[in-house]
Amino acid sequence: MTITITCFERSPDGGKGLARDTRVRWALEEAGQPYELRPVSFGAMKESAHLGLHPFGQIPTYEEDDLALFESGAIIFHIAEHHAGLLPNDPNARARAITWMFAAINTVEPTILELQTAKFAEGDKPWTKERLPLIKDRIRYRLNQLSARLGDADWLDGAFSAGDLMMVSVLLRLRLSGILDEFPKLAAYVARGEARPAYKRAFASQVVAPPTG
Amino acid sequence: MTITITCFERSPDGGKGLARDTRVRWALEEAGQPYELRPVSFGAMKESAHLGLHPFGQIPTYEEDDLALFESGAIIFHIAEHHAGLLPNDPNARARAITWMFAAINTVEPTILELQTAKFAEGDKPWTKERLPLIKDRIRYRLNQLSARLGDADWLDGAFSAGDLMMVSVLLRLRLSGILDEFPKLAAYVARGEARPAYKRAFASQVVAPPTG
Repeated sequence: MTITITCFERSPDGGKGLARDTRVRWALEEAGQPYELRPVSFGAMKESAHLGLHPFGQIPTYEEDDLALFESGAIIFHIAEHHAGLLPNDPNARARAITWMFAAINTVEPTILELQTAKFAEGDKPWTKERLPLIKDRIRYRLNQLSARLGDADWLDGAFSAGDLMMVSVLLRLRLSGILDEFPKLAAYVARGEARPAYKRAFASQVVAPPTG
Repeated sequence: MTITITCFERSPDGGKGLARDTRVRWALEEAGQPYELRPVSFGAMKESAHLGLHPFGQIPTYEEDDLALFESGAIIFHIAEHHAGLLPNDPNARARAITWMFAAINTVEPTILELQTAKFAEGDKPWTKERLPLIKDRIRYRLNQLSARLGDADWLDGAFSAGDLMMVSVLLRLRLSGILDEFPKLAAYVARGEARPAYKRAFASQVVAPPTG
């Protein structure tokens, strides 16, 4: 069985590890599964061959024998379900770890995506400078709640799980904004994630965009 | 085993079925599982008893014996995993149905949430009127892709699944905006969801806010 994932041919963040293939690579590294990479250009992502794999024209996708998946959350869940290391065996602990996967992408990430949308889709608009503090306050509201729940624990619910992998990946998007550093417990939590050997391997394996111009 | 879910004491939408407990009720109805309801007031949602169940102070939550979950996506997945009717048995078809659950909440819903945030959190701001068309265009971009993938099929991948339940629930948030009607295939898809007896029972069972004032 060969696993193939797609990634950006030229990572728009120049190798900061924020594209969603990094999450999937991290999960594969935690699970000890080798994989092959197929880089896709921005043009090819909107063409029918890739749209057949990913209806929203994004990366990553996941192929394994006759199974093709998209959506990093679904791919990570698939990896976690089929290999040890990402979900606890106890049924209740497993359900709670899955809950954190969903919380990461449906409660925490949408507020963070607003920050990115403001910068990239509305960066030239006259209102954006005034909106950014409002968006950042909405992010702080969620991070306050998350930090209160995490408390002094290493991970969100017992041992490291796919829930932590998703939450750390989502929070990493905030690093450049400086907001993460306002929450020392969350900053330390993210640092624990980054210190994992599997994360380090995933980060190192990213395709770094060659310098242009 | 008794299942207990929480919902708004007074639904902010006055019974339109857009609060996230409707998704969970729908899943429980599809699975033929009875449940008890515990309505929670806005004040109590931010108090420690409820925050112990839901760290982000929201509804719904799910309790069953010694298991407590939050996040509608995770709850629906838990129901789908333990009862027939929401996920196919074939492993590959099951993984694809789960993919649509994640696509609904991580790719389609965030753009729709921006519309709600603009109205409810920034409704009084001078830029909101000018921003709304930009947000709506971002929603249309995703709906175009989704409509192309759905094509003339009844459901996103074979038989109705938890992926359709999530996607229909997400798209329902758009009805009042009129955007859904611009995509006849998606409007018909949502109508097929609403026509299911389980959806009708879930909708009817919502707590409707009593008239105020």
